[in-house]
Amino acid sequence: MKQTNIAVLGTGMVGKALATALVERGHRVTLGSRKAQHEGAAAWVAENGENAGQADFATAAAASQIVLLAVKGEHAEAVAAAAADGGALDGKVLVDITNPLDFSQGMPPSLFVFGRDSLAERVQRAAPKARVVKTLNTVNASVMVDPGRIEGQTAVFVSGDDADAKATVRALLEGFGWQQIIDLGDLSTARGPEAYLLLWLRLWQATGSADINIALHGAAKRD
Amino acid sequence: MKQTNIAVLGTGMVGKALATALVERGHRVTLGSRKAQHEGAAAWVAENGENAGQADFATAAAASQIVLLAVKGEHAEAVAAAAADGGALDGKVLVDITNPLDFSQGMPPSLFVFGRDSLAERVQRAAPKARVVKTLNTVNASVMVDPGRIEGQTAVFVSGDDADAKATVRALLEGFGWQQIIDLGDLSTARGPEAYLLLWLRLWQATGSADINIALHGAAKRD
Repeated sequence: MKQTNIAVLGTGMVGKALATALVERGHRVTLGSRKAQHEGAAAWVAENGENAGQADFATAAAASQIVLLAVKGEHAEAVAAAAADGGALDGKVLVDITNPLDFSQGMPPSLFVFGRDSLAERVQRAAPKARVVKTLNTVNASVMVDPGRIEGQTAVFVSGDDADAKATVRALLEGFGWQQIIDLGDLSTARGPEAYLLLWLRLWQATGSADINIALHGAAKRD
Repeated sequence: MKQTNIAVLGTGMVGKALATALVERGHRVTLGSRKAQHEGAAAWVAENGENAGQADFATAAAASQIVLLAVKGEHAEAVAAAAADGGALDGKVLVDITNPLDFSQGMPPSLFVFGRDSLAERVQRAAPKARVVKTLNTVNASVMVDPGRIEGQTAVFVSGDDADAKATVRALLEGFGWQQIIDLGDLSTARGPEAYLLLWLRLWQATGSADINIALHGAAKRD
């Protein structure tokens, strides 16, 4: 993918991992947060050279062709709405990486939206003129930007209503090294990978490692 | 596994596929249904020789060491309770293969229990003296009894509170050819593989094949 202006909304572990990986691949990255000046974002900018910047959510989105939503699930809709302010997300590819984790009753979490709706669809409703694509929510931050951490070829899923937006996201994923990129269909198919998080959490618990992922296998060739 | 008396509760596609595979492996199998005489079960018995029988749920369970619950999710608790009648499931290994699919609002289905409870846990409450183990709900009937239909080694999950019951189920799964058998932990971990069904449905839709499964991959060895 050519050098692109990309916003990463969210200054947590996932946001910074994505932003750093994108700067390393030559993109100009604006780390977005609630305020124009954010202490953690400033530290990240200081470490990542001239292609790294920071701004509030809407300013970061306005400066970018692609916007990654990498906040806690509970904030996803509010941040998408804030970033859409003044038309900053109109027509933009909005990559939703969030998970609707509900920790309100302790560990392990449940999901606060599920089954007949998804956080991806809620984000789309919060930013109706963005072209939302769900992806990368099924692996941890380190694996997102470096799938080679996992042995073999494993899967990442893509859900979205706009084919061009999905092609853009596919190029982004290929830039991170992903090869088994599975297009599940329209945005409502994000209900699948969001529900999968509950299995991921149990696999993490059972294996004791967050460096895990799944591969999709099809029918064997038999004589 | 030595010849064992096994009950399969449910005369649908999943029940018959499991029952047939178990007869083929030399076990004595009783297909259980609501009535002592069931037309579909009678046809199955006629096709499967002297080790095949039929009975009502509780009679089938009483005659068996291992009981497989292979009914539609909406009937799972009632059938478990019926099979437990008269103590027929006391101490028995009850293998729960059901999925809590909710078709009440059309396709694709959602789940009628999710997140902070599971159908496996409900089945356990319906048959409190059984030793419930959840497994095999993440693949279709053909793959359950013949994982070699899928290329490579793929995963099947096991959840249960009783270690001996899980060891029995592991032997059963190995008899079907399963090799990547992942013990997720106690019965509440069944919430993970039950939620995964929503991803499975989307993968089925996207690939156009029910001959699919996932493999679990861990960290790559790097220098």
